Order: sequence, then C-alpha cells, then structure tokens
Amino acid sequence: MGAFRTRGLRQLGGSPPQSLTKPISDVRSARVTEAVIFGASGYSGLELLDILAGHPAVTVVAASSDRWAGEMVAERLRRWPTDLRFTSHAEVFEATREGQIALLAMPAEASADLAPRLLDRGLRVIDLSGAFRLRDPAAYEEWYGFTHPAPALLDEAVYGLPELFEVPADARLVANPGCYATATIAACAPLMAHHLLVPGAPLVADGKSGVTGAGRSTKDELMFPEVQENLRAYRVGRHQHTPEVEQALAAVSGRPVRLCFTAHLIPMRRGILVSVYAPVHRGVSSIEVERAYKETLGGHPFMAWVDRPPETAPVRGTNFVEVHARVEPRTQMVCAFAAIDNLGKGAAGQAVQNLNLLLGLPEATGLLPAGDA
Amino acid sequence: MGAFRTRGLRQLGGSPPQSLTKPISDVRSARVTEAVIFGASGYSGLELLDILAGHPAVTVVAASSDRWAGEMVAERLRRWPTDLRFTSHAEVFEATREGQIALLAMPAEASADLAPRLLDRGLRVIDLSGAFRLRDPAAYEEWYGFTHPAPALLDEAVYGLPELFEVPADARLVANPGCYATATIAACAPLMAHHLLVPGAPLVADGKSGVTGAGRSTKDELMFPEVQENLRAYRVGRHQHTPEVEQALAAVSGRPVRLCFTAHLIPMRRGILVSVYAPVHRGVSSIEVERAYKETLGGHPFMAWVDRPPETAPVRGTNFVEVHARVEPRTQMVCAFAAIDNLGKGAAGQAVQNLNLLLGLPEATGLLPAGDA
Amino acid sequence: MGAFRTRGLRQLGGSPPQSLTKPISDVRSARVTEAVIFGASGYSGLELLDILAGHPAVTVVAASSDRWAGEMVAERLRRWPTDLRFTSHAEVFEATREGQIALLAMPAEASADLAPRLLDRGLRVIDLSGAFRLRDPAAYEEWYGFTHPAPALLDEAVYGLPELFEVPADARLVANPGCYATATIAACAPLMAHHLLVPGAPLVADGKSGVTGAGRSTKDELMFPEVQENLRAYRVGRHQHTPEVEQALAAVSGRPVRLCFTAHLIPMRRGILVSVYAPVHRGVSSIEVERAYKETLGGHPFMAWVDRPPETAPVRGTNFVEVHARVEPRTQMVCAFAAIDNLGKGAAGQAVQNLNLLLGLPEATGLLPAGDA
Amino acid sequence: MGAFRTRGLRQLGGSPPQSLTKPISDVRSARVTEAVIFGASGYSGLELLDILAGHPAVTVVAASSDRWAGEMVAERLRRWPTDLRFTSHAEVFEATREGQIALLAMPAEASADLAPRLLDRGLRVIDLSGAFRLRDPAAYEEWYGFTHPAPALLDEAVYGLPELFEVPADARLVANPGCYATATIAACAPLMAHHLLVPGAPLVADGKSGVTGAGRSTKDELMFPEVQENLRAYRVGRHQHTPEVEQALAAVSGRPVRLCFTAHLIPMRRGILVSVYAPVHRGVSSIEVERAYKETLGGHPFMAWVDRPPETAPVRGTNFVEVHARVEPRTQMVCAFAAIDNLGKGAAGQAVQNLNLLLGLPEATGLLPAGDA
Repeated sequence: MGAFRTRGLRQLGGSPPQSLTKPISDVRSARVTEAVIFGASGYSGLELLDILAGHPAVTVVAASSDRWAGEMVAERLRRWPTDLRFTSHAEVFEATREGQIALLAMPAEASADLAPRLLDRGLRVIDLSGAFRLRDPAAYEEWYGFTHPAPALLDEAVYGLPELFEVPADARLVANPGCYATATIAACAPLMAHHLLVPGAPLVADGKSGVTGAGRSTKDELMFPEVQENLRAYRVGRHQHTPEVEQALAAVSGRPVRLCFTAHLIPMRRGILVSVYAPVHRGVSSIEVERAYKETLGGHPFMAWVDRPPETAPVRGTNFVEVHARVEPRTQMVCAFAAIDNLGKGAAGQAVQNLNLLLGLPEATGLLPAGDA
Repeated sequence: MGAFRTRGLRQLGGSPPQSLTKPISDVRSARVTEAVIFGASGYSGLELLDILAGHPAVTVVAASSDRWAGEMVAERLRRWPTDLRFTSHAEVFEATREGQIALLAMPAEASADLAPRLLDRGLRVIDLSGAFRLRDPAAYEEWYGFTHPAPALLDEAVYGLPELFEVPADARLVANPGCYATATIAACAPLMAHHLLVPGAPLVADGKSGVTGAGRSTKDELMFPEVQENLRAYRVGRHQHTPEVEQALAAVSGRPVRLCFTAHLIPMRRGILVSVYAPVHRGVSSIEVERAYKETLGGHPFMAWVDRPPETAPVRGTNFVEVHARVEPRTQMVCAFAAIDNLGKGAAGQAVQNLNLLLGLPEATGLLPAGDA
Repeated sequence: MGAFRTRGLRQLGGSPPQSLTKPISDVRSARVTEAVIFGASGYSGLELLDILAGHPAVTVVAASSDRWAGEMVAERLRRWPTDLRFTSHAEVFEATREGQIALLAMPAEASADLAPRLLDRGLRVIDLSGAFRLRDPAAYEEWYGFTHPAPALLDEAVYGLPELFEVPADARLVANPGCYATATIAACAPLMAHHLLVPGAPLVADGKSGVTGAGRSTKDELMFPEVQENLRAYRVGRHQHTPEVEQALAAVSGRPVRLCFTAHLIPMRRGILVSVYAPVHRGVSSIEVERAYKETLGGHPFMAWVDRPPETAPVRGTNFVEVHARVEPRTQMVCAFAAIDNLGKGAAGQAVQNLNLLLGLPEATGLLPAGDA
Repeated sequence: MGAFRTRGLRQLGGSPPQSLTKPISDVRSARVTEAVIFGASGYSGLELLDILAGHPAVTVVAASSDRWAGEMVAERLRRWPTDLRFTSHAEVFEATREGQIALLAMPAEASADLAPRLLDRGLRVIDLSGAFRLRDPAAYEEWYGFTHPAPALLDEAVYGLPELFEVPADARLVANPGCYATATIAACAPLMAHHLLVPGAPLVADGKSGVTGAGRSTKDELMFPEVQENLRAYRVGRHQHTPEVEQALAAVSGRPVRLCFTAHLIPMRRGILVSVYAPVHRGVSSIEVERAYKETLGGHPFMAWVDRPPETAPVRGTNFVEVHARVEPRTQMVCAFAAIDNLGKGAAGQAVQNLNLLLGLPEATGLLPAGDA
C-alpha cells in the first residue's frame, strides 16, 4: 500500500529544518531533469511554469495547451524570458521521452486517460487532478461522474501530501492532493493523530476559496460583476474532495472518518481558508491542542502553527500552510483553521514539492528564496 | 416577558402577503412621526438616513455625529437633497421631544447609557446595538465587557426580529438584533421550531461578513491593502452575538441551545452569509427540512426560501433574508444558510421594519418599491 | 432639428429646484403608463426594472429576454415582489400596444432594427443603445460597424441629455446618451458654453469604468480572476461614444469639437469617472471655471458641482452627475472630472428621467426618495 | 552632472540581453554585500526584504521599523525563514558600518535627514523617497513642503532609472524614481528622444494607482469600505512626481517639458497604469511611434513593448515596464501607456536593479527566475 505510509512525526525545532539549509549550490550542480506540463494554460498549469522557471534542477521542455497552442509562454508569464510556446496536447504527448517527469494540470477524466499512457512511455507522473487520489474505483462514479479507466493504478499512486505521507523517490505516480483537501487535512490531522476528537462524530469543514479555484472556466457566474461583492456556498455536502479527506484522515487516525464539507466562493483571486469544527473529548484544552499541532506538523518547512487564526494573504504565492486551533470551552468544540494558496500548496507548489522528492532533492528546492539571506 | 412572545407561524402563500399590498397612499396620509438618529455617521446610521429619506410616514429631524458635526448630511448621502446637518450627540439629545422615536446606532456601552435617558424624556427607542438584547445582566460583563447600567430595562426590551417574535405597537424599547444573529437565527429557527435537530448537540455557525460589519473604525487591519485578496476568522467562539442567538433559539425551541459561532472577514463591503451545521434526527430528509422552513418563515415579506444556497448579492441593499437548507445524508447533518445585507436586515432595514410596527404601519413601509408595478 | 435645442441655462439656487418638491401624491393620482422593456436581462435592463418598480406613474408590463425567457423577474430582482416573467423578444414585440412606451436596452444594431417597428405600432421609444444618437448615418459604418437601416429617424431622434438639450413631451424617439458620453459631456459642456477653451485644440478625455459597462458578456477577459487586481485601457481613440460627444459639444459651443477619448476598465462593478484635460485661454482661473459650471448646470436636480474631485461611490445607485474642475496654472490646462453611475445617469436612470419628460412629469419622479424627509 | 548622462540606446534584439544570461553561479561566488533597510515595515520596505531574500549577492543585515520594532520579520514575510527582527531606526543607524549599502524606504523629509548621515559613516545609499530626485533645492519647498537640509547632495545624486540614465558603479547616492514618475517617463521618453511631439504643448498624464501606492497609512479614506467600488482623482495637477518627470524628460529631449499630471486611486492593491496624451507632429504614424519605442527601450531586460495597451496584472510582482503607444489620427494625438507594479519597478524592484549596478552585477540579478529553464 503505497499511498499512506505515515511519515515519522518530528518535534518542532526553533531553527529551519535541515532541508532548508542544504546549500542550493549543491543542488545546482545536480543533473537537470526535464519536465513536461500538460494543461499549462489553466491557473495551476501557469503557476507550475512560474515556479519551475526558477527551479535550479528542472527544465520545462514542453507546455501543452489546446487553448493557447502556438502562443509564446512569455506572453502570459512576463517575468520568465523563455522561448517556449504552448503546444497542443497531442503534439506534446508525441514528443515525450523516457526519463521525463510529466505534471498533469487537467480535468480528472482527461488525466485518468493520459497518465497511464505516459507511464507506458517511461515517464513518471505527478497528477494535479483527482484522478488518482482515491483508492476505491467505485468512488469515481459517485464523486467524479466517470468510470475509472485504470483502476489498477489507484493502488500504486502515492498521495502526495509529504508532511503526512511518505513520497518515495522511486514512485512512478503521485496524486497531488486537492486544494480544499490539503487545507482540511492539515487542519484535522494533528487532532486525529493525537485522538483528541470524540470518535464517530462527523467533522464539519467550511471551505472558502478564491475564484481561481474554479479553474479558467468562462461561466456567467464567474464574471467579475457576478462575483465582486458577492458570496455563496456551492457543492453543499457534495464536493469531490470529501472522500479524499476522509481517506487520508482515516489513514492518520486508524479509524473511519466522516466529513461534512461545504465550499464557498469568495470574491478574491487566490487563497483558501478552511474552518473545521469538531467535538473534542471533555477536558481537552487549547494548550493540549496546540501541542498536538506542533508535534504533528513540526519540523516540516511548509507547515506553520500561528498564534492566531491564519489569514490567506501571508501565504499568497507560497507553498505554506498556516494552521491554528483552539477549544471553545462552552461547547467543547475545537475550531481549527488552515490557510493556503490554492495555487501554491493547494496545487502547483505542492506538485513541485513532490517533484523534488521524486528527484531526491530537498523538498523546498525552488520553493523558497534562493538567496543567502 | 416582552421579548419572546413567539409570533404565530403562517403558511407560505404564493402571493405577496397582505402587508405588502396595503395601499401606500393610505400610509402617506397618516400622521408623520419624527425620528432622531444617534450615531448617524456610522455605516448603519447612514443607512438609516438613506432608508428613511424615502419613508412616507417618518421624518428624520436630527442626525447626531460627533465626528461629522456641522457637515451637511447631503454631502454624505447625495441622493437625498436635504438641508439636515450632522449635529453633536449632546445637542441632538437636548433637542429631543416626547413622542419622537430615537434610533440608536452607537456602540453598545454608549447606547446602554443613552437609551434610559431618552425613555425618561418620553421618546421611544430602537437600539441597533447589543445593549438591550440580552435578558441576563451578567452576560454583559462576559460578552460586552461592561456592567449594564440599566438592567431593569432588559426585561422590558423587545427583541426586534418580527418574523419570530412579536413587536407590539406600544413597545417603548426595541433591541434590534445583531447582523450575524439575524442571519443565524433565521437559518436555525425553523429547524428548532420543528424539533428536527438532535437535542443537546451544539450548533455550529460559520459567519462570513463584509467589512462594513466592523463599523467605521480606522484600524490598520481594515485598510484596503490588508483586506483585499485576504480572508480570516476572528472572535473564534467568542463573538458577542453568540448569547443573543442562544437566547432567541431557546425561546423558539423551548430548550437550552448551545452555539459555536465563528466570524470571518470577507473582502467585500456589504453582505453576510451564515452557514449552519447541525445533526438532524435519523431519517429527516431535505424535503422535510424545506417544509419546516416554508412553514416557519412563510407569509413574511422579508423571508424567502430559495431553492439553492443563497448569495449575498441579491439581497444587497434590501431587508430580505434568503434561506436554504438541505440534509447531507452521509453524515446526517443539516447544512443551512442565510444571506442578508448586514446593513439592511442586519441593521437599518430591520430597524425600520420595527419602526413601522411601533407606528402601526405595514412592516414593509418604506422598505420595498413604492410604485404600482 | 430635434436633438439639440439647447435648454435654457439656469442659475444655481441654494434650495432644491421646483421639480423636486412637486408633491409626489399629485403624480400618483396621474394616469399610469405602461412600459415595455426590451433586453431586460442585461445590466441596464435590470436596472430599469429596479427603478421602475418604485415609479409611481409607470407600470412595467413586459420584460423581454431571450436568455432568461420563462424565468421570474423576482428571481433576479429580489426586492421587487412581482409576478412578471422574462419573455422572449418576439413574444413581447407581438404583445406591444399603441400608447405604451418601449425602453430598449439592447445592442445598437438590434435597436436600430427594432425601434422603427415599435414606432410603426404606435409606441414611443427610449433607446439606451447608440442606434439613434448620431445624426450622420455614415458615422454608423465607421463607429458601429453596420449600415443604419433607418437613417430617416436619426433626424427625428431627440438626444436625451435633458440638462443640456430639450426633451419635448411629444417626442416619439429618444436616444439615451452613452455612459461615457454623459460623463464627458457633463464635464466639458460648461467650458464650451462659456468659451473658456482654446479653440481648435483637441479635448483629451480619459474614461474609467466599472465592469458592468461592458454588459453581461461572458468573455475570458471579464472573468473575475482576470479583472480583479488588474487595470487596462481599451478602444484607445476608437470608442464609439466619441462622435456622440463631439456632436453634443459642437451643439453647445457652436463650433466643431475634436475629442481624443480612451476608455479604461476598472476592477469594480459600477461607476464611471471621466477626467478631461484641455487648454484654457490664458488668464482663465479656477474661480471662473467654477462659475461656468454652476451657471450651466445649476438648477438641475441631478447635476452637482462638488468642491473636490468627485468620487464614484457617492453617486452609486443614483441618477446624479458630480462635476469638479480646476485650472492647473503651470500648464494652463483645465482638469475637469465627472462621476456617474454607469447604470444610473449613464443608462437606466437617465432613461427614466427622459421617460418622465415624455410623460410630462417632474424629471426626478421615481429617481429620488419619495419620502417627506 | 551625475544624474542625467543619457545611457546609450540599444536596438531591440529578439533574444534576452546579455545581462540576463550571465551565469548566476558566477554571481553566487562573488563577495556578499551587506544591505540595511530603513523603513522596512512600509509596503516598499517589505517588498525590498522579499526581493533581497532571494538575492544571491546581498544579505540584509538589518531592517528598521519603529512601528514593528522587536517583531520577527518572518512573521510579516512568511516565505522567508529568517531570524531577522525589525529594529528601531536609531538602533539600526548605530549599527551601520562602512561598506554597507543602505536602502531608504521612508518619507522624503526623513530620508533627506538620514541619507547624509549614512554617507558620512561610509555607506552608500539608495533612497526610495523623493528626497534626492530633484536638482533644484527650491523645488522641495514648492512640491514637498520642506526646506532641503542637504542641497549639496542634489547634484551628486544619480537618478536611478537605468534604462535611460547611467548609474555608475561608484555612485554614492542613488535617487530611486517615483512610481508614477517611472511609468510616465517610460511612456514619454521614446517620443521625446525621437522628437515626435509638438514642442511646447504640455504633456497630459493620467496616472492610476493601486492603494499600496499611498503607503501604509491608516486613514479613513483608505479603509476597505471607502475604496472598494470607488474611484477618484487626487492631487490634481499638484502631484510631487511632476517636477521629477519634467526634469528627466527635459534631459532626454534637451528642451524644457511641461507636464499636467493627475493621480487616481484604483480599488486594487498593486499596480500603476499611466496614460499619456500629447500632440504629435503632423504625419507621424503609429508605425513610426512603435519604432521609436523599440529603439529607445530595446535591449533593456525590464522594458517591453507590447502590441496592445498594457495591463497591470502581467507585471504584478515583477520589475517590468510594459509600454504601448499609438497615434489617434483624427486628433493627431499620441496615446501612450506604461504599466508597472508600483512596488516593483515603481519602488523596490528598481532599487534592487540600481543596487546591482552599484555592485557591478548584471542588472537583473535577483529580479528574474534564477532557474536554468
């Protein structure tokens, strides 16, 4: 079972973890890996291009987009003076070669079809869609609306949330977690790992996301005048990240988990905040809760406990998760919060973190300032 | 006990309720009442001025503001060509006369001090702060941080949520509900009234508000660059609207109610969405839930069931509450939503609705288009 | 020549003009006129519905929309509890009757086709598009890209900017000005009327508009993530409101006028600010300029001189124009500004103002608070 | 005269200029320079910290802020895991040492006082305020409201817009241009350098800026509810960047230049667009204009001609200027546009570009992705 070997928990130290301080210059001299991005014109795909432009050990050799095929990448990503052009999916596929790593930022059904064909050609795959996140093939019909074409791969795929689950350097297929899922799991895992919650009670998670979370979809309800100064819930209790969270938290806690998740659309471009509410055992205090978070998430460069409810602005453009939780003693509920950038730790940032692990690099390579400061 | 005589529940009819169709011309010929607004330069105060500018039976004769004393009201409220000037609180107080109605849009502690003095002068008072919403004087120390100076009035004050509680025409003091409280109560009351919830389990309410909800307060964290493209929780489990909701819902259900409420700041000007999560009895269906809402809220002009999760934009600038709820069968939780304008039904709109009831007018007077259309 | 009889200029008085204080009750007892709205699902069309919902002398009997045909108007316009449904253009057309007034909020080419057919059926028409604003048929090919199908009507059509041009009560066809045009003309007309500008020098107008100005068009570049935190110019020197402004200002000044106009898209929903720059005669002072504005615009209820550069927020949701101008002595340029709501005075508000004039009503009827205050 | 030696104009080549491709690894092995930031808690100061965190040849050793003295820098700048703390101005000043470079992101009057004292201690200074931009001491009284305390330095200071003016590696004091000034000069310089404008006619520049341009100032009119959905002009004809633009453009054109500049506040966080309007000589075409821009700005890594009016979003978070211009033949006016990030090329980005030049590094060091891609 590849996906859920729980990663050893480390104590939170005061200084940055080792992986941060390993000299980047060592990295730089390493062999450069070729990366191919499928679905490069979506918000996550463009973010992958943007991050990898500064990565010292990876070169993007192709960026697929049927929408923008033929256009210069530099036209859409001004700070990266590259000659690369967007190319059709078919052409990029034909040009792939063994040893490359493919990053898939496409709809789940397209990924489910494409990934096996890329594996067959000898590439390794990091899939940003939900196509390989669930272990149970039947769940795809229920939550994604399609019959999974490659159920055998579901067992092989590694769930790429490296702070909680091991991502082996020899993995062939990484399922990059969903944006809401990443935040929800980060907010809940420490409570689960320390068995602080009343068992059996469902978790309530109220997710709030900026509009890029909906992808580059030209829909009436996503036009500026409809979103600005507006707020609404969507996919109440039916969001497709629900089973992914339940599966991951069950792996952490060793027990089945039930989640009641609702998504909300916020008038901003980027950022996710998930607020989780769940009953804790009588007597569990805020201090105990804080200690659980620090133990579970400590030592990971991209996970940070903050002393007040986290905001999305500080993590904008980063691969960080910021978490906070406290017990509300009147109701004996824990209120836990996680903030991420939906395009960073919620998509492209985490994909690059996984890419680093596949390459045996420090997981922060290319994701933190490279300077000496 | 004035505050919580539960108002008779009516069936939802297809046509607008009687109070909407009573000819406005009848109203117009009625005696005009003089209104005095204290705290007119805050967002709620200005909204009161704006609504009352078009009210056929009320004339605003004074608008107090220490901040803008001496300035023309028309400078701040362009669509109302009035000669009125903002005047200091002290001057306005001195000029008040028996028979007027005072609308207080001030901080709770200031209202708690001012309201008794206005009652003594023979005015009736609608207070938009929290100063008279709680029945238990001790709760003011816990939730508002001051010792209530007029605890005797807490029993007399009528809680002005007229869809649920009677507002008698002879009331002297109306406590206008809080913005979050109005939305939360609207979202929960039908479930309570129909006993659909598992008793004893705390209600979880996740409130989301535009920035005017914070009042006209010049704080670093409310500057545009800090709020735009940002999102955060605040007053986790400690929001002062919590006891007010518990008190109202206990009155509806006949049982104690515990609420775990968390507020979130949304990068928009106006609008509140409250998302409520609570376990329902096994077997309760979405259809049953919908029927409960229609029975409890039906017949009220400003309460509307909508068939999908409500948005704040459609209720912007109105006195409407829009609600929706459904059961999530996997977790047997109900997800209930209410959307309001925090300055409309959440403050000034509801205050005018209460004002109408004090004057024996149809409750929608001045709050809906006056045309024949 | 109907379009440009210059309306008598009045002195600015301190008190609201007569038209504002004429008792609304007189209006109310008047005969109710039936209005038909074509293109009711666009932003201007919806705003027309919203305003007319509160109009005491007009009833909207039909709202055409092919997009939303069959849906309840009240679903989109919550504060108006009407039974009206959106109906297809064709059906609404068939049901029109002599004596009604049609308000057309459609693309120019559709209006150019529809208006003559409505006139033939005995309706009067207020057209919110550009289809009848220009006197020269050839200009339609250059600026609008179509050959005008009814050039004979261009001479009959009245340009409905009533503060500057007479709108006779017996007009059959009113061309409601463009949003940018209204603001630009308001900002320039006083300078023109008082001959303060250096003749021959082109006017520079830099227009800035919220996104509803682009209409309800589902385009990639109008999606929320593309507009938020972004800013750009469009139709540089080629905006179709250019000839309309030149025509109107030539009528005011008695001389040809050349305008260099550029539009900019601002990340907000509603509001237009036009900034005009033009050389004034040597020696012209800010005081002289202010006097010119007050003389030209004074006495008009919806035109206001303000003592500092106007903002769009105060005129949001209103039919007001706010103007300010000053001379920059170092360059001897006048900087003039006009702020409007693009859906108010820039579209639906002004259309209702024109409708009032066609009905012989005070021009502010239904456009200002109806209360006694 | 140090400030205005015009830098040699280069032809625009298709490939990135040499300075971009110089191997960063060479840079990395260079001696690391210590930088000290004064005013590090402002928006520009924080941006300096953020950029320098990834700079391979500079280490920030101190960040002054009286506001946040004692707080961790990493609390405000999450992606930079540094131990640095904000420290009071006085303490930072005392700790400065010869050979360091000081970056001043403070109000002009504070900079004018501080810079000479830092020079005396043997530091070199890059000042982001206006304190050393103007050559004429008298202009400080007129435009900045203070008497310049160190007029002798005004002649020594180098105006740090390196695409147009030489920044010698041995300069002691660099005056980093204003945000509006940078964009306005970029938009106008090619027209000036090629003598395409009608001499004597004033330039009109309409500047539009996001709110961070106003600095971290806690003012009523910069609160979120006041800025959102609003738009206004400010400092009409009186903005302090005016003389700086006139001075720079006079140096480029060899003739006096008069500018009529007006600033506008846009409801967004970051970004500046300046729209310039000026009469061109009869017969000058858009093609000729385009050629002028490409000749003047070509070869500079951070200046780009774009084929349509530029937007601010693509340059957000970068040091780029994007320009476009075209001739409007009806009025024979050129409409020219420049888009920048006010905190990037408009402040901190350009300061780092200047810092690179002082250190003899490629000017893009630390300002473009460092990866191999």
